[in-house]
Amino acid sequence: MTVRVDLNLSLDGIVMPADPTPENPMGEDWGRLVAPYAATKTVRERVMHDTSGEGTTGVDDRYAAAYFEGVGAEIMGAGMFGLHAFPDDPDWRGWWGEEPPFGYPILVLTHRERPPLEFANGTRFEFLVATPEGALERAQGLAGGADVRVGGGASTVSAFLAAGLVDRLHVAITPIVLARGVRLWDDLRELERDYTVSSEIAESGVIHVTFER
Amino acid sequence: MTVRVDLNLSLDGIVMPADPTPENPMGEDWGRLVAPYAATKTVRERVMHDTSGEGTTGVDDRYAAAYFEGVGAEIMGAGMFGLHAFPDDPDWRGWWGEEPPFGYPILVLTHRERPPLEFANGTRFEFLVATPEGALERAQGLAGGADVRVGGGASTVSAFLAAGLVDRLHVAITPIVLARGVRLWDDLRELERDYTVSSEIAESGVIHVTFER
Repeated sequence: MTVRVDLNLSLDGIVMPADPTPENPMGEDWGRLVAPYAATKTVRERVMHDTSGEGTTGVDDRYAAAYFEGVGAEIMGAGMFGLHAFPDDPDWRGWWGEEPPFGYPILVLTHRERPPLEFANGTRFEFLVATPEGALERAQGLAGGADVRVGGGASTVSAFLAAGLVDRLHVAITPIVLARGVRLWDDLRELERDYTVSSEIAESGVIHVTFER
Repeated sequence: MTVRVDLNLSLDGIVMPADPTPENPMGEDWGRLVAPYAATKTVRERVMHDTSGEGTTGVDDRYAAAYFEGVGAEIMGAGMFGLHAFPDDPDWRGWWGEEPPFGYPILVLTHRERPPLEFANGTRFEFLVATPEGALERAQGLAGGADVRVGGGASTVSAFLAAGLVDRLHVAITPIVLARGVRLWDDLRELERDYTVSSEIAESGVIHVTFER
């Protein structure tokens, strides 16, 4: 019943690049930030539905595979689901098309309730007005003993980390300097005090840092 | 004739912790930031004049030893020398006592010239009103074919990096989150484009990242 967070960061700690637009919801730098992750065999199969069998199989892929293992429910912020980009569209169903790469229930934290959304592959979005603690209790109920992921975005993850609710934080640091966007660490002074921190370098140059309780 | 920079950073890119005071010129977090570096055999011998032979001898010590190898001159900002903490003290001779751990000429960039300072071990501080390019030309003349270090502080290093004057940047990232202080990367967007970036994890948990041309 671990509560887990996995994020891609730039070397300067940017978790959400600048200048998101409806057409380019993660900002122009997103592609470079997640390129090593997107190149893995696991992500190509699981997220991009690429059946070619291609993709990297090293350290990055090991983390990508672990990302999809053992999660029973997820919590995400309204912005990550897309409610800030499309606030007035009652038909918005998320960024992921009709086969979202989850397969489990997802709680979307919002300020205004909406009816839940169901997909054929077991993904179910439920919209919730709740504190982090309240959302976590509900997610743990839905996860049936499996792990809960806090998926993002930046402010949602930061709130859960600051509240001490996260058991394991894994950041995949791409060695690029973005200098523009939302930084993860600003409200997390001395986060390391509650965790054991370990690191590993992937073949791609990505630095994987794990905070584990 | 490489132009080199070596810095200690927190995981969130803080190079100069908050709240410096004359009594604690590097801020209260400095000790934690540089603890793995200060624990090396090389730094204990070279900086602290510890003759016990104790100290770590792993990856951190290899970088510490390289730090002292092959440098013929150094450039530093006025703040790093201490002129901001003691602006009106004509007798101020730097933080390092009568045996500064340099042994070569150092150019201190300032807005007001002062007479040079000489020490018995070959360290000589010269105060210079100059652009980064001008200071570098003078330092290369003094270095006699050896490398030039840009020592610090944050704004001096950032100016040299932004001007494209640095051949090798090595950052030793201590896996702690400070969240307060001066960040290195803010003016260095896409710095990686001019360099090959490689990384290595030390036994201490420090992440050594090197940008090399």
